Amino acid sequence: MKLEAFKNDITMKIVLVGAGNLATNMGKALFKAGYDIVQVYSRTMESAALLAEKLEAAPTNNIEEITTDADVFIFSVKDSVLPELISNVCEKRQDCTFIHTAGSMPIELFKGKALSYGVLYPMQTFSKDKEVNFKEIPCFVEGSDKQTSVLISSLAETISNNVRFLSSADRKYLHLAAVFACNFANHCYALAADLLQQKNIPFDVMLPLIDETARKVHKLAPHEAQTGPAVRYDENVICKQMELLNSNLLTKEIYEKMSQSIHSKALMK
Amino acid sequence: MKLEAFKNDITMKIVLVGAGNLATNMGKALFKAGYDIVQVYSRTMESAALLAEKLEAAPTNNIEEITTDADVFIFSVKDSVLPELISNVCEKRQDCTFIHTAGSMPIELFKGKALSYGVLYPMQTFSKDKEVNFKEIPCFVEGSDKQTSVLISSLAETISNNVRFLSSADRKYLHLAAVFACNFANHCYALAADLLQQKNIPFDVMLPLIDETARKVHKLAPHEAQTGPAVRYDENVICKQMELLNSNLLTKEIYEKMSQSIHSKALMK
Repeated sequence: MKLEAFKNDITMKIVLVGAGNLATNMGKALFKAGYDIVQVYSRTMESAALLAEKLEAAPTNNIEEITTDADVFIFSVKDSVLPELISNVCEKRQDCTFIHTAGSMPIELFKGKALSYGVLYPMQTFSKDKEVNFKEIPCFVEGSDKQTSVLISSLAETISNNVRFLSSADRKYLHLAAVFACNFANHCYALAADLLQQKNIPFDVMLPLIDETARKVHKLAPHEAQTGPAVRYDENVICKQMELLNSNLLTKEIYEKMSQSIHSKALMK
Repeated sequence: MKLEAFKNDITMKIVLVGAGNLATNMGKALFKAGYDIVQVYSRTMESAALLAEKLEAAPTNNIEEITTDADVFIFSVKDSVLPELISNVCEKRQDCTFIHTAGSMPIELFKGKALSYGVLYPMQTFSKDKEVNFKEIPCFVEGSDKQTSVLISSLAETISNNVRFLSSADRKYLHLAAVFACNFANHCYALAADLLQQKNIPFDVMLPLIDETARKVHKLAPHEAQTGPAVRYDENVICKQMELLNSNLLTKEIYEKMSQSIHSKALMK
């Protein structure tokens, strides 16, 4: 009981390195959970200030000015700039814990640069104009040692109800699966929107179908839920539909490959 | 007022030609709306009987035994068998109205075979194990003449709150768009499921992401909602992810084409 009470009195000081969509959503969730966000770094002062204001934090666009007076540093930036930022920030802060949030990047990025480090990957699609409920987001955690794993997962559990441990090796596959289930599924919506626009049909008519397609896989495995001309490879329909795509060869190739893949999956049942 | 009362007294006699997923869902909706489903035809007596029982109708698997004592015949069968069935059934029933439900098939299938005919395409993905709310399904209607168009749309409006007229020429594009937004999006889920299975990660972890991806396009256009490595064509991530797909070349090609297509769409913004 005493330990619990004591634990609740600890206020972690957090620095957010990054102010993009993920940093914004996670920063807000951490702030709401009572953490002390002391500073927000971003390449531009404008975006640092925009997020810092919401989190009652200090903004900076100067790496040299990132504070040393914090417990946890969370890197939430583009994959391409992550290694360099880690090198810059971890130096001289050996008593702190460092976390990155990138699904496709390994924990090893921190190796030799910090003592306590790990990953907190919230698997969700974040856009600036669309609020999400962080509590529902599956968060995947990995730590440099047991203590750090516990620290990161207890931090994750204050903002999400769905926290799991996952190694970098397995997270690579999880992130790739997320690219298919989110980015590629969304691109299928985008290609549908292009086709409808050609005939001045509003995209809204597609929403009940999109919703039901997503709802279905809560009850059925995706391959069981599959319908449409490709399942039995109905060549008559498939050929006619491919003809409609003659003006966009890349979309036509996508149609062909997807239909072949659906059919080969159906044959394996 | 009198006309309304009179209209409500008319009970249309309907024959369902077909007993698959769409016929089952639509048959139930029509039965619930008070129509008299007099007969259900299917290639096998088993499936004819299964649906007929639910609709208090007579089952048959013999085309010769399809009744002439009905007002409306609804064809809801595989595209490949539709022309032949239409030829067989429409003969000798020139005073009836004939409707097919196939998104990709033109109204012209009936030409020269019937006088009053049309299309009622309910754009949804139907599976036997998953009930759908027919009221929410967008239904696209076309008729051989104004009277038939009105007849089919008033029939459609008793089972759906979302009825529109659409020509066969435009419906081809709508159906193709539905293949992308439903069948191909669902296949993206299936490919994600395969990847997760390789690492023994339960598919359930993907559901919040799938739901949010679908929810997002209620507020943002799909190309605005897009995230992930392909938008800026992050070659580092894309190359590493393609390597993970070396064991399945078709999936790898899909990954490549989709990424290229997402990127070219992002450049057009």
